[in-house]
Amino acid sequence: MNSSVHPIIWENGRLRLLDQRRLPHEIVYIENDTAAEVAEAIRAMVVRGAPAIGVCAAYGIALEAVRAATRTPGECRQQLTKAAALLRASRPTAVNLGWALDRMMLRASDAIDAGADGAELAHTLTAEAYAIFTEDLAANHRIGSLGGELLRDGATVLTHCNAGALATSGYGTALGVIRGAVEGGKKIAVFADETRPYLQGARLTAWELQQDGIDVTLITDNMSGHFLSKGTFDAVVVGADRIAANGDTANKIGTYMVAVLAQRHAVPFYVAAPFSTVDLACPDGDAIPIEERSAAEVIEATGIADDGTMRRVILAPRDVAARHPAFDVTPAELITAIITERGIARPPYADALRELWIRGHA
Amino acid sequence: MNSSVHPIIWENGRLRLLDQRRLPHEIVYIENDTAAEVAEAIRAMVVRGAPAIGVCAAYGIALEAVRAATRTPGECRQQLTKAAALLRASRPTAVNLGWALDRMMLRASDAIDAGADGAELAHTLTAEAYAIFTEDLAANHRIGSLGGELLRDGATVLTHCNAGALATSGYGTALGVIRGAVEGGKKIAVFADETRPYLQGARLTAWELQQDGIDVTLITDNMSGHFLSKGTFDAVVVGADRIAANGDTANKIGTYMVAVLAQRHAVPFYVAAPFSTVDLACPDGDAIPIEERSAAEVIEATGIADDGTMRRVILAPRDVAARHPAFDVTPAELITAIITERGIARPPYADALRELWIRGHA
Repeated sequence: MNSSVHPIIWENGRLRLLDQRRLPHEIVYIENDTAAEVAEAIRAMVVRGAPAIGVCAAYGIALEAVRAATRTPGECRQQLTKAAALLRASRPTAVNLGWALDRMMLRASDAIDAGADGAELAHTLTAEAYAIFTEDLAANHRIGSLGGELLRDGATVLTHCNAGALATSGYGTALGVIRGAVEGGKKIAVFADETRPYLQGARLTAWELQQDGIDVTLITDNMSGHFLSKGTFDAVVVGADRIAANGDTANKIGTYMVAVLAQRHAVPFYVAAPFSTVDLACPDGDAIPIEERSAAEVIEATGIADDGTMRRVILAPRDVAARHPAFDVTPAELITAIITERGIARPPYADALRELWIRGHA
Repeated sequence: MNSSVHPIIWENGRLRLLDQRRLPHEIVYIENDTAAEVAEAIRAMVVRGAPAIGVCAAYGIALEAVRAATRTPGECRQQLTKAAALLRASRPTAVNLGWALDRMMLRASDAIDAGADGAELAHTLTAEAYAIFTEDLAANHRIGSLGGELLRDGATVLTHCNAGALATSGYGTALGVIRGAVEGGKKIAVFADETRPYLQGARLTAWELQQDGIDVTLITDNMSGHFLSKGTFDAVVVGADRIAANGDTANKIGTYMVAVLAQRHAVPFYVAAPFSTVDLACPDGDAIPIEERSAAEVIEATGIADDGTMRRVILAPRDVAARHPAFDVTPAELITAIITERGIARPPYADALRELWIRGHA
């Protein structure tokens, strides 16, 4: 089963991104021709989700290489370096962004050193971005297949934020696990936290599961503890924006609270992510930078008004102070297993993640 | 310091209720002349908050007595009994509602048995409702004075939902504790959970603290765990809708998750409530009925659009399933102390609450 949801489309040398700010209300693709446009799309959350951000950043470099195709290798290198810096600064927490940019820039450097001209470089980098895209898709399917085994037939699963087709090349990590279980013939019901303030659960997870005919029930973020206490969930599955060497995991704000409650009620808490999300250079959660986004996003929400138009509404006193950490860190001790395309890591994670790293380099 | 916020005003034999569904965007009072109107105002959440609901239900009985002033005592009794049943069914979780109605109906019965005519009954019940109103206000001030002692100067305090002036006769329970500390000369900063889906924190707590010049910062419900892990809060203070004999406390959905996280980070978790919230007939949390409200409320939010009008927007796919338990139960073991106007109860609560009950009947 592939997902019917396609967030990232490379077509005729342009990057088409499904505008996730307007989902589920409007299906609109935004065309991107430059790295600057892609960086802005990432910053403005046209596209989000750690793996998807990595894929888009790679395509951003490819776009820039296409633009520089008639320039000298030296000029190409300069233009790509500038583009990479711009893309790298677009979001701070997801490690896949830096990982994809490093991979693209290494490929560029190798090609230039090997005597590639601008046109060859454009070809090479477009192919490399496409490889990152398809490898992510393949990793998702493998995560789904491995992770799907962990869910029993008839399970009800809680997820937070959107780690789905929309957060990746098109199948999902946490929702990939759900899809993998469904592909394996199991009946799975999903509860989705709405995930304020940006409502990725209400807008994206609910929508994409509906697209694929998977049973989904929406709750607000403050309800999961109640349902966990009532025994509603067999498992929790979430994605990750960065996994430290010791297994501490940064993910969408609110993940930590869910993990603490899951442990209290002895419900397994799974993190599903491509191995590119693991940052072995980061010793633990304290070393993960946490993005603080605009306070304005906390006092507003966007949806469809009674007149059918999409409107942003202010929910609170307009001048109230607000805080907006976009991510939090779930300590490794709360995580039952980390599901990657290389295999399932279980505690102690320092050893398990190192072993999976070696497996990828063997 | 009194609060400048007046949610419940009895004026010329009518009950004026500040329409809390429209706060903070519009300040509109709704006039109520009958118990049926008051029951509908409670059901539709024009007024909410356990103590305020109790006060309004009492006034609903008074309104009905005024309407029946020219009838026979037998007719009065029948009309009031019908009104009480209507009011009792308006919200299920708050025990103060039943408590206030029982008190009003007992007073009515005593007066009728003592030979009161309709006019005398109307006078008696209006006075009794006013007594419930002022007793609640006095209880709030006492809760504030006792609870304020528990907060240090310079403290940052997290609260969930609105247990403020707007949830009571006009000073607050949880926010009464904040006001009590401020009255005691302490500088207190408040973080308010927005409290989806109804946004009592964003709309009501933020607004009423601003009205009284108290420092308030808004966060979404999924952020408190992150801030607790960072040591931001000195204490958590919340209200209660019903407290069982063993100290288990029903309060707005999400309270339980905050309590679990507060305990994990060794931050004191206080419940502030008038003693009328204690239901000694209820042995523990499992016996507290939890209201399940409309799923529609979970997929929508209301606020001010860019054109200045108040609009409801649909946040999720219109046809998505949703669940909406309006309350959850925080087990007594997570509660550091229960602050009532009769004194501060500490574990073991079965003994402490029974002792406070005796104190009220000595």
